[in-house]
Amino acid sequence: MNNHDKTPVTVIGLGLMGQALASAFLRAGHPTTVWNRTASKAERLVADGAKAAATATDAIAASPLVVVCVTDYTAARDLLDPADGWDGRVLVNLTSGTADQARAMAAWADERGATYLDGAIMAAPDVIGGDALIVYSGPRDAYDAHEGTLSSLGSGTRHLGDDHAVTAFHEMAVLSLMWNMLNGFLHGAALLKAAGVDAASYVPIAAQGIGTVSAWLPGYARSVDDGEYPVLDSTLDGHLAAMRHLVEASESLGVSAELPALVKDLAERAVGAGHGEGGYAVLVEQFAKP
Amino acid sequence: MNNHDKTPVTVIGLGLMGQALASAFLRAGHPTTVWNRTASKAERLVADGAKAAATATDAIAASPLVVVCVTDYTAARDLLDPADGWDGRVLVNLTSGTADQARAMAAWADERGATYLDGAIMAAPDVIGGDALIVYSGPRDAYDAHEGTLSSLGSGTRHLGDDHAVTAFHEMAVLSLMWNMLNGFLHGAALLKAAGVDAASYVPIAAQGIGTVSAWLPGYARSVDDGEYPVLDSTLDGHLAAMRHLVEASESLGVSAELPALVKDLAERAVGAGHGEGGYAVLVEQFAKP
Ligand SMILES: NC(=O)c1ccc[n+]([C@@H]2O[C@H](COP(=O)([O-])OP(=O)(O)OC[C@H]3O[C@@H](n4cnc5c(N)ncnc54)[C@H](OP(=O)(O)O)[C@@H]3O)[C@@H](O)[C@H]2O)c1
Ligand SMILES: NC(=O)c1ccc[n+]([C@@H]2O[C@H](COP(=O)([O-])OP(=O)(O)OC[C@H]3O[C@@H](n4cnc5c(N)ncnc54)[C@H](OP(=O)(O)O)[C@@H]3O)[C@@H](O)[C@H]2O)c1
Repeated sequence: MNNHDKTPVTVIGLGLMGQALASAFLRAGHPTTVWNRTASKAERLVADGAKAAATATDAIAASPLVVVCVTDYTAARDLLDPADGWDGRVLVNLTSGTADQARAMAAWADERGATYLDGAIMAAPDVIGGDALIVYSGPRDAYDAHEGTLSSLGSGTRHLGDDHAVTAFHEMAVLSLMWNMLNGFLHGAALLKAAGVDAASYVPIAAQGIGTVSAWLPGYARSVDDGEYPVLDSTLDGHLAAMRHLVEASESLGVSAELPALVKDLAERAVGAGHGEGGYAVLVEQFAKP
Repeated sequence: MNNHDKTPVTVIGLGLMGQALASAFLRAGHPTTVWNRTASKAERLVADGAKAAATATDAIAASPLVVVCVTDYTAARDLLDPADGWDGRVLVNLTSGTADQARAMAAWADERGATYLDGAIMAAPDVIGGDALIVYSGPRDAYDAHEGTLSSLGSGTRHLGDDHAVTAFHEMAVLSLMWNMLNGFLHGAALLKAAGVDAASYVPIAAQGIGTVSAWLPGYARSVDDGEYPVLDSTLDGHLAAMRHLVEASESLGVSAELPALVKDLAERAVGAGHGEGGYAVLVEQFAKP
């Protein structure tokens, strides 16, 4: 395909992630302009065909689509505030931040006549341009107009909603999942270590457990969305009996029982509320309380 | 292959799981004897070629390898105590239980002249005979002698160690991982629900997060086994900053902050102990404390 058919793009911020983003646009044949506070980080990209802008304002002038990816929203505002020429531009901000920051940035862009899409990168730099998942929120029509271009960054491109804050909420949700998963793994590893078993032998077994739970999640999500909690794997009563074993096992091995005790307490509260014969997903109602 | 070459096996307990086990042995061509307290559950298996024993003692007499899978160890002891003829048999117990129960059952078998293997099924009945993971502990030579037969139950057959309790420890560890993973998912779903976002749209994003964490686990396991915690994804300080956001986001959305607060507290304690610039796996040391 002729590169003249490809939307010109600008990438501002050439850290680990910004460089990966600019490289993916170049590989997909988009005329790519780049800018970074520390100019030397543009060198390799220029060798690969990117154009280095002298200022952020020049970088914005170069393309209808401007992608920003820096450390945090404070850094993004620091560098974008002094820049001009936003009118009619689409600003895609892939910097990680909170829902409030996303909404404030949308208002900021609106004042300058730019259309704002907030994005979150759910992947590491090395899979950018491959099967990376990148999610966006903000005006659907702006997303639709640029979906083809954005899909150069990862095949898992999705629009989550018109509210700019939605990607930040999803990012929070997935982080909650990731840390709890890691903590469960590490608590399990501590148990095994206390029992004289190495963590390496735990990895394939953990992978199996993860696969099992992963297969349950679509059903759990349906339960949450429907507000009904049929038994999908085992009853909450059944889970609770095994949770009590886990607390005892932790104590008898001399390992912290704090995490399994919370796991058990949450289930006990739901059983106390009359959900013992229902499915585990009813715990969402415990989490929904402040 | 001629079925006369295949080790005869007995399956005691024909609940959902026991029936799947007996079917898999039949499909693999093993002469299979079955027994269940409620005899009618043997009918379909007999139609498929199994031999129904009249008593548990008859079932034990029929095969050198006896697999038991009932509700719990109390049920197993209730039905096995009155039965005779254990001398020289290999008893494989696939009933879920604790480390103490596994050790007590090993002593029980030893008194009767039987060799004991404790097992844990890390899979649902529908994948038995397919790629199910089933792990065993107990005398290595007994496992080796029957590995071929046991692999009829699932291609993921593994011996974890000579100590009969090891499978129970692994089962506890993987349960800890599974519940924490579910809780992280459900807390995330509660956050999204409070923000007006459905859980269905969370599923593919959660899957991506799970894939990311799964890819980290071999490295985390190495950290745990080595007692050294290099930065594999981001520093603990970096994680902690985002954890504080999660607590704030939970509070501002009116969702329980109990779970994210524990996640944050655990990380804060490790940072307080001087591990802020290390990798996340150092949390195993927090879990290792009673
Ligand atoms: N790396 C990942 O695996 C990953 C994954 C998902 C999401 N993310 C998100 O992507 C974003 C960027 O991450 P990264 O890994 O690329 O970080 P990084 O390698 O540390 O790069 C940070 C970038 O921000 C720039 N920057 C920081 N403060 C600035 C300021 N005040 N003014 C102008 N520029 C400033 C830096 O410019 P200098 O070069 O001049 O310092 C650099 O280009 C973060 O929000 C991160 O959470 C990263
Ligand atoms: N199903 C799964 O997804 C799964 C996955 C992994 C591990 N497991 C483990 O596998 C084991 C069996 O599970 P399951 O799903 O097959 O359970 P199930 O369908 O409820 O069957 C229970 C079996 O135990 C027998 N039983 C219970 N109490 C007994 C007693 N006092 N005397 C004699 N027999 C007794 C029952 O006999 P009757 O038919 O006469 O009642 C039946 O055969 C459990 O330890 C479970 O944790 C199951």
